[in-house]
Amino acid sequence: MHNKIGILGAGQLGRMLCQAAINYDTYLMLMDRNEDAPAASFCDSFVVGDLLNFEDVYAFGKKVDCISIEIEHVNVQALAQLEKEGVEVIPRAAALQILQDKCLQKQFYEQHNIPTAAFTITQNREEIRLHQSLLPAYHKLATLGYDGRGVQYIESENDWKKGFEAKAVLEKAASIEKEIAVIVLASRDGKQVVYEPVELVFNPQYNQLDYLLSPASLGETQILQAKLLAEKVVKALASPGIFAVEMFVLNNGEIWVNETAPRVHNSGHASIEANFSSQFDQLIRLMLDIPLGSTQARSPSLMINLIGEKKYIGKVKYEGLDEVANMEGVYIHLYGKKETRPGRKMGHITIIDNDTDSLIKKAKIIKNTLKVVSQ
Amino acid sequence: MHNKIGILGAGQLGRMLCQAAINYDTYLMLMDRNEDAPAASFCDSFVVGDLLNFEDVYAFGKKVDCISIEIEHVNVQALAQLEKEGVEVIPRAAALQILQDKCLQKQFYEQHNIPTAAFTITQNREEIRLHQSLLPAYHKLATLGYDGRGVQYIESENDWKKGFEAKAVLEKAASIEKEIAVIVLASRDGKQVVYEPVELVFNPQYNQLDYLLSPASLGETQILQAKLLAEKVVKALASPGIFAVEMFVLNNGEIWVNETAPRVHNSGHASIEANFSSQFDQLIRLMLDIPLGSTQARSPSLMINLIGEKKYIGKVKYEGLDEVANMEGVYIHLYGKKETRPGRKMGHITIIDNDTDSLIKKAKIIKNTLKVVSQ
Repeated sequence: MHNKIGILGAGQLGRMLCQAAINYDTYLMLMDRNEDAPAASFCDSFVVGDLLNFEDVYAFGKKVDCISIEIEHVNVQALAQLEKEGVEVIPRAAALQILQDKCLQKQFYEQHNIPTAAFTITQNREEIRLHQSLLPAYHKLATLGYDGRGVQYIESENDWKKGFEAKAVLEKAASIEKEIAVIVLASRDGKQVVYEPVELVFNPQYNQLDYLLSPASLGETQILQAKLLAEKVVKALASPGIFAVEMFVLNNGEIWVNETAPRVHNSGHASIEANFSSQFDQLIRLMLDIPLGSTQARSPSLMINLIGEKKYIGKVKYEGLDEVANMEGVYIHLYGKKETRPGRKMGHITIIDNDTDSLIKKAKIIKNTLKVVSQ
Repeated sequence: MHNKIGILGAGQLGRMLCQAAINYDTYLMLMDRNEDAPAASFCDSFVVGDLLNFEDVYAFGKKVDCISIEIEHVNVQALAQLEKEGVEVIPRAAALQILQDKCLQKQFYEQHNIPTAAFTITQNREEIRLHQSLLPAYHKLATLGYDGRGVQYIESENDWKKGFEAKAVLEKAASIEKEIAVIVLASRDGKQVVYEPVELVFNPQYNQLDYLLSPASLGETQILQAKLLAEKVVKALASPGIFAVEMFVLNNGEIWVNETAPRVHNSGHASIEANFSSQFDQLIRLMLDIPLGSTQARSPSLMINLIGEKKYIGKVKYEGLDEVANMEGVYIHLYGKKETRPGRKMGHITIIDNDTDSLIKKAKIIKNTLKVVSQ
């Protein structure tokens, strides 16, 4: 068993990894730039360091037997060097390098015949005008885009100035029926375990993510297709790790890969309560070289992100928490962030219930009750 | 909401309290004599201190808004003083004082007409000889007995020298059909929530605890009786807190209270996976003044303590862990203790399964597979 394991990043994902690691006999180290990061208190050793700095990542990695990430924007050269020197890196540096860069990622899908939206690589915004056949399209920065940042919708040629003056993907907007995500774990010997697809349900009025539902409302064939496609992506990456493969289900029924995250993922949060083994438990098992757990669902579930309300900035206050705590099958997860700001992920709520209608009903009540505001 | 909460003790119970607290926005402090205690790394602040020392407990308590315990052997005078000075103490010092002392505890049951085995208080072992009508009996040290330590079986008058030369309870041995435990939470306003009874199943050959089963195999009337009795005990204690009421079901069907622990308890460990809200989640909610959660079971469960094997002393090794990790519905909880010794609680395994026979079958496999030995 690996004993000393390290995670780059100590945000909410790191926090839930700490929570899972408490079940095992391990020495867990985290590194983050922010000394007050959500997970900083909940590990055996916390190091302040810059995840993008070679020396910081390298020095941290030399302290552990196995290193992984909770955010993809880390210094991949340092990880490659650590790999050479015998530190186990999960996911492998080569796989991470591909997924860190949206251009490389799209080219990777193309090379491996993985269905994905038509695209081209642009070096500047002017180039958008050369690809009118792709419009309407999304212009996505190659690197460091995150959570909606680094993405611009280009409806027509006239919008080209909204694009990025840097390397980016111009990706044809697909006619999407729904978005889903499938989480896959690959062990060292290439064996995979896969979770059922989770559906990302958007609010049609605001086009914002409303909640995540599991199981996704898909036919059996589509579920199988989605899982096979996710497994294909992960097989092509040829790396152990946990991968969240986000996909579009098109109006014509086809399934395309949108993008893949090489880490625990928002779409897997409900697995803490809803599955035999959670995504966090699985990554810890993988790092410790304990066999992977069962991905089977114990119950249908729905997950709501708790987002800082518009207009509120400052010391956080959770309105309506008591009412929500009183609801059966409702699990509160707060990330311990001291300051709220509009759109900031401050926590999540998981609901479990055998009845999907009841899940959705409870979600509506919670959304109307629980608000993240400032004091 | 209370923000700063403190727990006296940082053993495995503290460790699982940390795990539960990660779901909330809190600042959690722990104190323990042992700087390498199982929970020391998983809280916001860890203090080394002697739980039985007035100054240490008082100074620790002054740092928090609400203080609780994971072990009952703490300085209760310091807690009483903290209470006077406005720190919320859970459970109240007066309740803790009763439960800390097996003599006071038995007298308390007697005063409140709570059925319990006949007993007398002895000041020394010689006095055992004056109470032949109580024999065979258990002689239990008034204070600091724990996990079987501080208890002697006195079969007949000839055994009197096995007794304790200190204040103790001499308690008539009951004709027990089974042992059960019921966990009750009392909130500040006296409202209670109660878990279903858990059955402590003993190995008849070795008279050792074999596993804990939930739900207990009791008739409906007995379940109701047991829950009402546990609620009565907690009501009489007149304190908010979490209380594990251990009971005997006699051969004649009567239910007697054995003893009550004013803290999270071994008999509640399976609630992490088997109930909507775990015993650990409940105590954290209570301390933070968030409404208590649902005690309802999601699934039948069985819990096995992982005990250091006989003859092995030293750096711990878990044999057979991989095989157990591969079993569905099986949850590993290791307490992170570095050294094993015979009988030491090193972790526990929870199994969930809708079928009781299957639970017991899996338990047997696990007991034959997973061994806590030294390296």
